[in-house]
Amino acid sequence: MSETQARRPATVADVARAAKVSKAQAARALGGYGAVSEAVRQKVLDAADALAYRPNALARSMNTGRSQTIGVVIGDVENPFFGLATRGLSDTLRDQGYDVVLANTGERPDVEQDAVRVMLDKRVDGLVVSPASSASTDHLRTFLDSERPLVFLDRLIEGLDVDAVTVNLRGLAQQATQGLVSLGHRRIGFISSITAPTSGYSPDLALTNSSVAERLGGILDACREANIVVDPAWIQLNAHTPSAVAAAVEGMLSSAERPTALIASDSVVGLEVLTTLRRLGRAVPSDVSFLMFDDMPWSSLVSPPISVISQPAYDMGVVAAKTLLERLAGPRPTAVHHVLEGQVIHRDSVSVPAALSTSN
Amino acid sequence: MSETQARRPATVADVARAAKVSKAQAARALGGYGAVSEAVRQKVLDAADALAYRPNALARSMNTGRSQTIGVVIGDVENPFFGLATRGLSDTLRDQGYDVVLANTGERPDVEQDAVRVMLDKRVDGLVVSPASSASTDHLRTFLDSERPLVFLDRLIEGLDVDAVTVNLRGLAQQATQGLVSLGHRRIGFISSITAPTSGYSPDLALTNSSVAERLGGILDACREANIVVDPAWIQLNAHTPSAVAAAVEGMLSSAERPTALIASDSVVGLEVLTTLRRLGRAVPSDVSFLMFDDMPWSSLVSPPISVISQPAYDMGVVAAKTLLERLAGPRPTAVHHVLEGQVIHRDSVSVPAALSTSN
Repeated sequence: MSETQARRPATVADVARAAKVSKAQAARALGGYGAVSEAVRQKVLDAADALAYRPNALARSMNTGRSQTIGVVIGDVENPFFGLATRGLSDTLRDQGYDVVLANTGERPDVEQDAVRVMLDKRVDGLVVSPASSASTDHLRTFLDSERPLVFLDRLIEGLDVDAVTVNLRGLAQQATQGLVSLGHRRIGFISSITAPTSGYSPDLALTNSSVAERLGGILDACREANIVVDPAWIQLNAHTPSAVAAAVEGMLSSAERPTALIASDSVVGLEVLTTLRRLGRAVPSDVSFLMFDDMPWSSLVSPPISVISQPAYDMGVVAAKTLLERLAGPRPTAVHHVLEGQVIHRDSVSVPAALSTSN
Repeated sequence: MSETQARRPATVADVARAAKVSKAQAARALGGYGAVSEAVRQKVLDAADALAYRPNALARSMNTGRSQTIGVVIGDVENPFFGLATRGLSDTLRDQGYDVVLANTGERPDVEQDAVRVMLDKRVDGLVVSPASSASTDHLRTFLDSERPLVFLDRLIEGLDVDAVTVNLRGLAQQATQGLVSLGHRRIGFISSITAPTSGYSPDLALTNSSVAERLGGILDACREANIVVDPAWIQLNAHTPSAVAAAVEGMLSSAERPTALIASDSVVGLEVLTTLRRLGRAVPSDVSFLMFDDMPWSSLVSPPISVISQPAYDMGVVAAKTLLERLAGPRPTAVHHVLEGQVIHRDSVSVPAALSTSN
């Protein structure tokens, strides 16, 4: 979307001015989309002819002619966290007359790059993205070059000064882990579907998903406070299929220094951890304590009810939508970062570690 | 998108022919989207000038210049059934080089009408829709008028001869209900989030969602076979919020002729039914038997594990994508309706009715 021509072509704004119609009407008539009267259409086309307006200027001129469409690029349509956030976004944007177009990346950076390019092609007025990885940002910079607003949901990218809506996950993870430590847990496992170069963890590994990095950071903060030396084997990444989650859980629990508590990084991973524990005949919490990020309707229906770190997913969508709408209403000097509060909800899946009596 | 001009304007195909480039290249150069070399761009723009090509012909000419984008309009992004089906669609379409753009209707016909219009505006090459209602079809007919393929997922609309992928829900519902009847149940409740003029049911009510109509039809078939006279109060529609589900369950269970078994029309409703039963202190299955449509990872984790009517959601998405790809490859004489097989999975949420000993 960068300017490569020396001669400045006529824009939709130029055509609208010459035709004495609004930019939105001119954009609709020139783009062949939306409702526009025949009289307006003819005035716009005559003005376009007179100015030698060229159709390929259309994409470039979309800063002025709005499509009333917002793009939303989410990480995983199967994760109910994103389902809820998407509804919050859609409810708020529709109230203001915007249509919402979604794309799902499945947490794959290459799919996200395609999705953002498609959103540019489809001339959205603004974009909400849960970036799959902070390692590749060219597609996001290209979108920003189009001078349309971009809002990050759930995740940040260092170096990209963009409006964002997140939750205080580091503090919540620390608080939940402190709870485990206070019960006597010294070996705490963490399982995430985040893509990483290796499934195993090493302290110098740079996580490219800020939301997962915050969760893990809070766990490690609490361990450090308690002088716990964390075994990298207790941190399992790349668990993005049921079999990968099963392998991670089985691997951790079959070692001599096995974790006495497991934390799942989201409810989709959490379901697979619970399924694996049941298959292995490991009871929660008498054999292993368990908690997870995100509170879902089933969390309190399973036996035992699951302790969770709850995020206000719907509200995150609402705030992201409002932030985008404010940007569309006019420029603001600096990026705004909204940090919403979540909470640790104690149910019955956490207890004193069994290992205190059976090993160590 | 109907033709209103007498004079036939130059199309992208005309410009491509004159410029001696492919239609896809011409479309990209004229539309200002996608990658195209400067040499091709200049040839196309010169040809467009010579033919007096007008930009607003762009939308109309998209039958020939493909955008390599498929639109998917789903009923409820929060229902994991659609999450799975969407992944099946996306995996298959991406393998063939197509990007996928999603829209969520929340099962609202007005939102669906907007979504289909947006997909037209965004020039998708084809569309997959789970129609929210068979009562309004103008937007779908408008899409078909654009001569791009349309595939229905999960639902049919009588009178619209469109490719479709569904599951044999009527047979499955009948089979599951026969199972209840054989255990002695004579009062069977059904709860659905489908929008209907009234929450209560009457036999002459025309359900506008074929997928829910099939589920209910199968239940009523089995009741008819067993000479059960169905009380309309046992059929609760419009349960599309947690409080509406709760009210439906409470209403049914507080009546003298209360159902001894409940069937939820999907897993989202099912979760709310179970939550309500727990709150009311009604045990499953000793107080009331329960089963639901859709098998989710949590179904076998809750206590007791839930009997379900399972649909191959991922495969439905795959088949819908393949059907669309075949249409894009060339015309076929008649619409194809793929009916996939689901299965009734027996777990522990169904038993002999408690009412046999406590009432009646």
